[in-house]
Amino acid sequence: MTETSSRLDALRARLRDAGVEGLLIPRSDEFLGEYVPPSGERLAWLTGFTGSAGLAIVLTDRAAVFTDGRYTTQLAHQTDPARWERRHMVEEPPAAWLKAHAAGRRVGYDPWLHTEAWLAKLRAESGVELVALAGNPLDAAWPDRPAPPEARARVHELRFAGASSEVKREAAAAALREAGEAACVLADPHSVAWLLNLRGGDLAHTPLLLAFAILRDDATASVFCHAPARVPPLGDGVWVGSRDALPAALRALAGQRVRLDADATPAAFAQALRGAGAEIAWGEDPVRLPRACKNAVERQGARDAHRRDGAALVRFLAWFAREARSGLLTEMSAAARLLACRREAELFQGESFPAISGSGPNAAVIHYRATPETDRRIGAEECYLLDSGGQYLDGTTDVTRTLWTGPGPAPAELRERWTRVLQGHIALATLRFPQGAAGPHLDAIARRALWDAGLDYDHGTGHGVGSFLSVHEGPAAFSRAAKPVPIRAGMILSDEPGFYLPGQYGIRIENLLLARDAEALPGQAKPFLEFETLTLAPYDRALLDVARLSPAERAWVDWYHARVLAEIGPLCDAETREWLAGACAPLG
Amino acid sequence: MTETSSRLDALRARLRDAGVEGLLIPRSDEFLGEYVPPSGERLAWLTGFTGSAGLAIVLTDRAAVFTDGRYTTQLAHQTDPARWERRHMVEEPPAAWLKAHAAGRRVGYDPWLHTEAWLAKLRAESGVELVALAGNPLDAAWPDRPAPPEARARVHELRFAGASSEVKREAAAAALREAGEAACVLADPHSVAWLLNLRGGDLAHTPLLLAFAILRDDATASVFCHAPARVPPLGDGVWVGSRDALPAALRALAGQRVRLDADATPAAFAQALRGAGAEIAWGEDPVRLPRACKNAVERQGARDAHRRDGAALVRFLAWFAREARSGLLTEMSAAARLLACRREAELFQGESFPAISGSGPNAAVIHYRATPETDRRIGAEECYLLDSGGQYLDGTTDVTRTLWTGPGPAPAELRERWTRVLQGHIALATLRFPQGAAGPHLDAIARRALWDAGLDYDHGTGHGVGSFLSVHEGPAAFSRAAKPVPIRAGMILSDEPGFYLPGQYGIRIENLLLARDAEALPGQAKPFLEFETLTLAPYDRALLDVARLSPAERAWVDWYHARVLAEIGPLCDAETREWLAGACAPLG
Repeated sequence: MTETSSRLDALRARLRDAGVEGLLIPRSDEFLGEYVPPSGERLAWLTGFTGSAGLAIVLTDRAAVFTDGRYTTQLAHQTDPARWERRHMVEEPPAAWLKAHAAGRRVGYDPWLHTEAWLAKLRAESGVELVALAGNPLDAAWPDRPAPPEARARVHELRFAGASSEVKREAAAAALREAGEAACVLADPHSVAWLLNLRGGDLAHTPLLLAFAILRDDATASVFCHAPARVPPLGDGVWVGSRDALPAALRALAGQRVRLDADATPAAFAQALRGAGAEIAWGEDPVRLPRACKNAVERQGARDAHRRDGAALVRFLAWFAREARSGLLTEMSAAARLLACRREAELFQGESFPAISGSGPNAAVIHYRATPETDRRIGAEECYLLDSGGQYLDGTTDVTRTLWTGPGPAPAELRERWTRVLQGHIALATLRFPQGAAGPHLDAIARRALWDAGLDYDHGTGHGVGSFLSVHEGPAAFSRAAKPVPIRAGMILSDEPGFYLPGQYGIRIENLLLARDAEALPGQAKPFLEFETLTLAPYDRALLDVARLSPAERAWVDWYHARVLAEIGPLCDAETREWLAGACAPLG
Repeated sequence: MTETSSRLDALRARLRDAGVEGLLIPRSDEFLGEYVPPSGERLAWLTGFTGSAGLAIVLTDRAAVFTDGRYTTQLAHQTDPARWERRHMVEEPPAAWLKAHAAGRRVGYDPWLHTEAWLAKLRAESGVELVALAGNPLDAAWPDRPAPPEARARVHELRFAGASSEVKREAAAAALREAGEAACVLADPHSVAWLLNLRGGDLAHTPLLLAFAILRDDATASVFCHAPARVPPLGDGVWVGSRDALPAALRALAGQRVRLDADATPAAFAQALRGAGAEIAWGEDPVRLPRACKNAVERQGARDAHRRDGAALVRFLAWFAREARSGLLTEMSAAARLLACRREAELFQGESFPAISGSGPNAAVIHYRATPETDRRIGAEECYLLDSGGQYLDGTTDVTRTLWTGPGPAPAELRERWTRVLQGHIALATLRFPQGAAGPHLDAIARRALWDAGLDYDHGTGHGVGSFLSVHEGPAAFSRAAKPVPIRAGMILSDEPGFYLPGQYGIRIENLLLARDAEALPGQAKPFLEFETLTLAPYDRALLDVARLSPAERAWVDWYHARVLAEIGPLCDAETREWLAGACAPLG
């Protein structure tokens, strides 16, 4: 904390040099994503706070860090109360704090780190003058700032991507032409990766090259990244160059109509384009929806990846069933064992996110991450929650199972609650719905069984998942907080209701679902969609209260378990297969 | 059509005088509501089209009328194709038409008939210059325009309103003071009526005085309406005057901060206030939410009104059961009979909307209204849909039952579909949900039983209902198209799923629900809400496929029918009571 204290002083000295009386320091870097490389960990360097969502505001005489409910405890633990006011992002929002403490002052921001839309809202709500800075004063105050990542990038093969970069670019360029736009900025590296069939290693769990791109209406593209030599040739019409070349490329768009996505584009782009005399057309990233709607090859890749991932998970589950009561397992060692099982799977590239391995009360912490300090011995009669996933060249997985470590069935209350979570999970997995319905409209379907008992969970029911890309992918999500983007065939979404009793236990059950066109039924007047369950792993029947299930729910569990046994059984060793046959036997 | 043709010519002559090359003619009048008095029927006068949603655009050389899917047939029937292009509001929106045909021209609008938000969107999407006009050229071209309504207004008694105007005004004024606003404009006559405990008779089915008001932060209010002498004294602090006094009252707000509701306020207010040097604070009508959340007296009034309304409806149903197969009933005569039954009910003031009385294929027309031309004899073996409601001094009702006219049970397909509609209706009526959930999140709950069979209905599941006010009241609605306003205790909403097979039959089942706080269950960690069913009338079991119901659904139907019998039975004559006892007997 002495260290972060001197950093705050150093930053304040730089603010004076920059002619401002304050600075906004967000958690994201210029790619506005969930994960940042070490070179982008500005918020952590300055404040000590390492949560994945936050914002600091430094004024000359006071400073505050904001985060949301998931991280308030961590924020209090990691930051120095003598130097930082700790605030709740929603209940004590930054705009109110600015209004109270920065009225009449000039507060600076790095235009690469915020969208214009967010800045406009902050300006309107706070009444404070926000000033775009040419360089980030924090970077100047950070002497040993790590270099940006330089991982080798590689081509994502056509046998996994399913469509060539040429075909994808031509489709996106046609959308630009139809809208009368000469070009668009792709500020989201996920879009760059998908469009150009390019994968990188700049982040720990998402195979991205951190890059911006400009796509033109003639289907040519320019890519701008640090150390461009690490990028392989991407074919005719795709130029790859250094970030230094970006300003000139934006200036070259003078007089043209250029699409920017308001939710995903740093303000610096709009400012540069206006300066160059280009016309800005706010519109959706033209790649986001095609990326979300997996093509036939990506869908088959997802099925294949889930079968291999299921085999690895089932091997772990069989082992866990034998070892859980040994008293020797800890959260970290169990997660390491699962990772070892996945490592043997073909095309495995790494975890899609740090596994959440929580036992007993730790499982009630929704975003728990076991560390050497918190690592807990898994007890003999308790719930163990394991939420994990893999990156495979042909697909991304994400699966959660909650397991009972005791020898017999779990206590009645736990079974009742786990079964309600399962009922919600099944209700969504078996839903048929008409075209046009969006995630916010369907989220309640997975909650009703819990709501009936006055119970709920404080997170969305599910998020989109990429194809060997991010495990959290927009635009669709089963969440009231999400934009109502209609669910389309080819989207992959998680179905993960839960229930958490703080200090005691946590339950979550998660499969990935692939949306597909449903076969028409007699009398059907419009197109319907349904879900294909991708994830293949048994549920722990020690937690099931079978009497609570309706006949249709029982039939679905039996059908699903039979499918798991048929698809995963042949991939297992004899001992695992025997365990799996028991785990997948019809309900008694 | 010759008449409307000469009207169009007369209007065009006036456009030249006004110095514009076009005019927007919306369906609504300056109160922006669903219903308009004869003096506000500009769209119908000009075009012949009488649907409840529409817009005309007249240019010097061409003219178009726009409406939505409900009214496309009616639009084609009522308007002259030689003079009017007929367009679909959503698929061929006005902005696109303006862009194509009015580029570079000045198109006028009456600033009393549109919100600024809508005009800004139209301007942005069309690129056409829209010019505010001082007077409406159409009114000048309409020589025999009816006078504005002059119905007597009256005080809504405290025994029905439950809170005095003083108390309501003080609460709203406190909200203004907290927001630092000196006043607000109430441009919605429903808000004026509720705030001042005032009811009128300016519209056919909603007991409104068509008036604007200004509420100040000291809890005083000024009301502006045509013929103010018809308004009774409204107590200290409430001034009632003529519409002519409005400009001066707005000018008097110079230098002050004034709240306007962007969704409910004609552009003329913002233009006048800006001209006067007032500061506009866009914000929600401070009365809308208190009005939607009925107080204890309004809740009890709703229960009482529904009991009387139920008795009237049950009397009708018993009569209908005897007469349906006589071959003598028509849609209009049946609706008239129901109205006669309601007229005998205490505190009844009139229908809350024109009853939808549709038999056979007419029931598939969602907004069907029987007229002498369409009036149909009710057949012996078909579905009859009756959607109707009453205005009572203590509450507003809205109820739909679909009845089978045959002697035995309906055919299997009809029963299956009617039963799915009932299952959705029950699913919503029995929902428990946490605070914060809004209508768009819950709408799917009522659809699932239909979705399972590939069926759906193309309307929202339910709308808010006022307390002796409009039968369609915001801000909450069970609809994906509605704003996600959390449902609060005291809101009254309809629960009316349906199924329509065009050309054959239509099904809808509707009760009103009162949202209330739910008693906490063991383990419940946050507040939940539930619904109390207000409507009391049996479902027609000739349409029920009892084998499709779950045990819980069967139990609910039996519980509801027992309640109907217990509450309505004592209010009926002997013959009706005997019929009701059979209709409410436990399911076999």
